[in-house]
Parts: sequence; structure tokens; C-alpha cells
Amino acid sequence: MTWVPGAEGSPYGVHNLPYGVFRHGDRPTQARIGVRIGDLLLDLDGAEAAGLVLAGGALRAPTLNPFLALGRAQWSTVRTRITELVTDPAHRAAVEPLLLPLAEVELVLPFEVGDYVDFYSSEQHASNVGRIFRPDDEPLLPNWKHLPIGYHGRGGTVVVSGTPVIRPSGQRATPDGPVFGPSTRLDIEAEVGFVVGTPSELGSPVPVDRFADHVFGIVLVNDWSARDLQAWEYRPLGPFLAKSFATSVAPWVVPLDALADAWLPAPDQDLPVLPYLRDVPHLGLDLRLEVDWNGTVVSRPPFAGMYWTPAQQLAHLTVNGAAVRTGDLYASGTVSGPTRAETGSFLELTWGGTEPVRLADGVERTFLEDGDTVTITATAPGPDGVTVGLGEVRGTIAPARAPHR
Amino acid sequence: MTWVPGAEGSPYGVHNLPYGVFRHGDRPTQARIGVRIGDLLLDLDGAEAAGLVLAGGALRAPTLNPFLALGRAQWSTVRTRITELVTDPAHRAAVEPLLLPLAEVELVLPFEVGDYVDFYSSEQHASNVGRIFRPDDEPLLPNWKHLPIGYHGRGGTVVVSGTPVIRPSGQRATPDGPVFGPSTRLDIEAEVGFVVGTPSELGSPVPVDRFADHVFGIVLVNDWSARDLQAWEYRPLGPFLAKSFATSVAPWVVPLDALADAWLPAPDQDLPVLPYLRDVPHLGLDLRLEVDWNGTVVSRPPFAGMYWTPAQQLAHLTVNGAAVRTGDLYASGTVSGPTRAETGSFLELTWGGTEPVRLADGVERTFLEDGDTVTITATAPGPDGVTVGLGEVRGTIAPARAPHR
Repeated sequence: MTWVPGAEGSPYGVHNLPYGVFRHGDRPTQARIGVRIGDLLLDLDGAEAAGLVLAGGALRAPTLNPFLALGRAQWSTVRTRITELVTDPAHRAAVEPLLLPLAEVELVLPFEVGDYVDFYSSEQHASNVGRIFRPDDEPLLPNWKHLPIGYHGRGGTVVVSGTPVIRPSGQRATPDGPVFGPSTRLDIEAEVGFVVGTPSELGSPVPVDRFADHVFGIVLVNDWSARDLQAWEYRPLGPFLAKSFATSVAPWVVPLDALADAWLPAPDQDLPVLPYLRDVPHLGLDLRLEVDWNGTVVSRPPFAGMYWTPAQQLAHLTVNGAAVRTGDLYASGTVSGPTRAETGSFLELTWGGTEPVRLADGVERTFLEDGDTVTITATAPGPDGVTVGLGEVRGTIAPARAPHR
Repeated sequence: MTWVPGAEGSPYGVHNLPYGVFRHGDRPTQARIGVRIGDLLLDLDGAEAAGLVLAGGALRAPTLNPFLALGRAQWSTVRTRITELVTDPAHRAAVEPLLLPLAEVELVLPFEVGDYVDFYSSEQHASNVGRIFRPDDEPLLPNWKHLPIGYHGRGGTVVVSGTPVIRPSGQRATPDGPVFGPSTRLDIEAEVGFVVGTPSELGSPVPVDRFADHVFGIVLVNDWSARDLQAWEYRPLGPFLAKSFATSVAPWVVPLDALADAWLPAPDQDLPVLPYLRDVPHLGLDLRLEVDWNGTVVSRPPFAGMYWTPAQQLAHLTVNGAAVRTGDLYASGTVSGPTRAETGSFLELTWGGTEPVRLADGVERTFLEDGDTVTITATAPGPDGVTVGLGEVRGTIAPARAPHR
């Protein structure tokens, strides 16, 4: 039981405690770490300054990175202490002045992103994309069930939820050759991101069973994608400008500690995998995503159906000796379930733009129009029948800027 | 004329002044910024501490990033002041104690790498790769002459010259399906990297004519590549583990200011390019690379022949609104000239491993063996007939580590 008003029974109750970074009117230039409880934010900068919680000063930083670097033992200690502060009424007098209404704060990017990797781990998504782009071939390429396909994205253009997404311009193919202009097939990708806390050493792979030693928590991701740019540029080195203009993340990093009740067996893998990818138990996360397009929920992608698990992804990412750093982000790839109403991209939802969806206001859509807003939310099962909220990742499309020449 | 002993006429004379970061026995844990002159290093941390050069403390940092962030006006001011210090004998008494023999210092990674992008801008290289992998098709894909193909690599595994390169393990295809093990086709890619100083704003492309406002200087790059891993993993999202285990860079960042005499017309482009890629004048850099394999120079790749220019690469990288940050690195792609002895990868030099090269010690090689050392050096023309040295990027292959299970 928490004494914090309104928090009991909320998806952001004491069982969740996601971390974020905020600015507040009383010190508007200073980014500070906070933890969400109900619809309030506990100012952890203030809490550490007051000696209410101790993390060697890591909670007084303007990003989560120093805290992420502390490692699992310290993450647990801090979580336990925060839980005490918001449950034991003896702390109420000291803590209550540090609680800020969410409506009064500006949430900023919660961590400085190192390398950003994007996987492609939903069998339904990869199959749908194959069917749409290569209708005469096998939908999945031969490597897909042997390794979690992934690539590096642009860490420097990861932005926090709410940041306007300026429609990218670039080259797209036409029968008369490539032309330059604003993307005409702007899309979303609903994904789940994994935030690395503890770094690994160059040359030392992270085995599947050490996932929780390195990953601090998860964050919702929308990996905006310009399908027309992508189709023209991606051979032979993969997506580049089609993805690098913006990747939005939710302002909340939900600790793995809050997701203990969300693990469940991942789907059986059809082919035996190489030993370094064998995770026993083979577990995924029961996260239920919801994609809202201008006020209409158009899709409910189920993360539980992902073919490759987060532990397999991290083991693969590092098996060549690549190191991970604090603040690295790796995302699952688009989350798509078996039905159209469970797909995590509009490419799939509208089947390559051939089958428009009708939104609640009666308008039809294939790809994103200027002014459109997409909001992705998600929940996970928590203890005792409550849910764990993952917050939201939201973006509104701003018109393309005039070219510089 | 410089008063620094041995510097006059050296490729590292007062016309060059490349920046690096070093550790020295007198304060072994502290990384400090220095500038090379001849075979000495001027300790800029000490110089700024003594008030001999002023950069608002940026030269007292443990990486070049704060200095890179200052922008071109400050870069020029600092360069002018350093030139005074090492040419005016009046400064000799104050400066000489700050000169350290290079042999006494350990050079470390000179800047903290943000996003790492790798282009593919040599027509000869792209054509050779096409001929080797797709002998029955056109060697270049249809997009190649319309845009500088590129992709994101892993910034977190960029390492300084001299760092051992542990042979990566991973999956490769066999007729019986994929197997896991150490790469059997480990290769180099001789490249030139461009280091971003001044950041750009999200949503604001950098036009071709603003290249020098953002790029501080250049650094030699060896983008180690595991060809067997690459061939199996790269469809459809591009290279991933084949490249992410290590990318080596030279310890010296050579400022654009040192390369004023190295610009020359780039090769004419066969097809008209879209307006955002039109750079007038269309200039490349006359950098002459040299690839040494265990003591034998096996190739001399000419950077002057690159199809896409550095300004075009930066304009393309940002035309979708992607921002660049201080410390971002973008590399040219493998530098290959028209003859076999000018190729920048062993894939090309040995034509897919079918035509071994014989080294001076009589042994033959196709791809890299454990214990092999590759050293890439380069020079550029400088003023008055002197050359500008770019230092070297060197790596020795260490055996694969035993798998963790």
C-alpha cells in the first residue's frame, strides 16, 4: 500500500516505478531524474540531495546514464528504498514536498543514447513485408529463422515522445528515375526497446542467461519509417535515411524489476538454433501494445508472439565480441501479430497502401498525412491482477521543410 | 620555420598539427589532449593550464569533443596560436617543457564517437564487390550513381590504432546450413573518416556548401569486415555483426585547415545528380593511402578517385533532417582505385580469396590469419612541396576467444 494519493491500483503504482527525466518550472533549465508514481513524479534529484535515497550522486545527474551504469545490485537497492519512501507513512512528511504533478513537468529524453540497434524479430511482420515486397518469393529469407536479423540505426536522432516528427525528404524511385521530395509513404513501427545499463567488455559476448545483468529496463519505441525512401536506398547495405530522421521513445524506462510477472514462454522456434542462441527457459514478455491514429485505435500488437526473445537478441548482438555501453538501446523490430488488427506498421495494416483504414472521424488513411498523431501505449501484467503501464510514445507529423536549395 | 627540433620538413611539421589524446607516465591515468609536431607531442592540457593557449578549458578535457564543439572560428584561433607557439622563438622557453617524445606516450581514442556512418563511395570498390558476388549481373545496383549509399555502423566499437582485433565468431552459411565459429574470411577496409565538430539541428539538412562549417577534420579508418558473416546475415537489412566487432581509427585527427593544398577536382559524375547533391566546385581530396600487410605494402589506394565527395556524403546523410552531433564519424567506404594494386580490401586484392597474394616473407595470403598485422598510412600534399602525414591505423589479429558455452 502506498500513501501517495491516487497511486494505489494505478498502472503506475508502487509495483511499477518507471524512471524518467523532467524539467519543472521552479528550475526550468535543469533536467532532473524522477520516478513516476500514479500521476505524480517523485523528484529523485531532490530526494538524493535530501539524503532520502543514496546512489552516489547518480540520481542528481541530468540523464539516467550514471544510474544505469551502477548495475543491478544498486538498481535493486534504490528501488527498494524508493518503495519504502512511498509506502511507509513515516516518510510522508519528507517525501510529499518532492512529489510533482505530471501535468506540471516537461518530460525529456530519459537517457543519452549510445548505439541504437533495431531488430526484425516478429515472424508475422517479416513475413508480411516479404509478401508485400516480393509476392512471388518465399516471404521469409533463408537466414531469418537462424539468427535475429538486425541493423544499426541512428542513436543521435532518438527523440522523446511528443517531439514533432518533421516529414523527411529524400529520393524515391519513379519510372523516370529517382525524384527528390517529401516522403509520400511515411509509416510507423511499433516496437519495444531494451535499455542497456551495465556495459560489457569488447571481445566478451553476453550469453543468453546474462540478459538481466546488462539490461536495465524497457521503453516503448516508434521507429518512424519512410517506405518510399527505403525501397530505393536499401540495396545492398540496408535502411539508412528511411529511418534516421527520427525514432521516438516513451519518456519512461520501466525497470525489469517491474516486469517480473510479465514473462511467459515465447513461441516455439521452428528450427533448432545454434547453441549461443539457446535460452532455457525461452521467455518473452506479455506486453500488449495499442496503436492510436488520430484518436482511433487501429491495432493491438501482441509482444508475446515475438519469435526471437530479448535475451537471444542481446546474445546475438554481442556474439562477435561487440561491446555494449551504458545507454545503448536495442529495439525488438516491429511488433505484429497474426491478424491485420495486430500489425505494428501501416504498411501491413493497409497492405502496402492498397487497403485504406477508416478512422473514427470517417477519413481514410493509408500512410501518414501532415498533422496526424500516432500514440503507442502498452501494458504488462503486474502482481495481484494490476497492470504495469509503459506510458506512451506519441508523435505528430509536421510538414516537410522547404529544401535548402 | 619552427624551432621544434626535427619538425622542419617533417610530414608532421607546423603545416599539419594533428590533434590526438594521450596518456603519459607522469600522470598515467589522465587522458590529455596534445598536438603532434615532428616526433613530439605538445601537451595542450598543460599549455592551456599555463595560459599559453586559451580555449575556454576545452583543451583540458580528456577527449577532443569539447574542442570539436567550439566551431570553426575557435578551431582557427587555436591553430593560429599553436603555430605562434611553435614558430616564435620567444615562446620556446615556456613551450619546450610541454613537448613530450611520442615514444613516451600512449595514444588513446582521440574523440568519443557518436554515430558512425560508413559510405560505399568508390565506384571501383562497389563494382568489384558486385562482380565478385553477382558475376552474372550488372556490377553496380541501379541506385548507386544517384545517391551515396551508406549505412550506420557501431560507434561503440570504434577503437584506436594498435588495439588488438579479436577474430569475431558468428554464423556463416554452409551447404548443410549455417554453422557457428570464428570468421574464416576476415578482411580490412581502408577508408578515410570525417569527424564532425559543429552539430546540426534536427530537421535542418546541411547543404553541400556547408561541409567545412561542420566537419573538423579527418582520420584514417580500417573498417574490419568478416566476409563470411556478412554474406549470410546481410539480407535484407545490411551488414551487422560482420562489421560491428571493431573499427580502428588512427590516433590523429588532421584538421581540414592542414589539407588546404589537398583538394582537387573529383572525377566527373556520369549521371546528373539531384540538386541537393550538386557541389560546385566538385572537389575530392588527394590522399594517398598505403596498405601494409605484415611488412609488405600490398596496395596503394588513391582517395582522389572517389566517386562521391565528402560534401555530398554529408549533404545526403542529413537531407532527411537527421542531425549530426559533435563526435559523429562518417567514413568514405573502402577506397579502391582502378588496378588490383590500388584496392582497399583483401576481398578485392585476392579476388574473393581465389588469387592469393605473396608477402615479402614468401607466405601467401587470401584473408587475415591470426597474428597478421595490417597498417594503413596516408599522406596528402601540403604547402611548398611538403607532405601532410595522416599517421597510421594499425591492428594485429588476435585469435578468436573460446565461446562462452
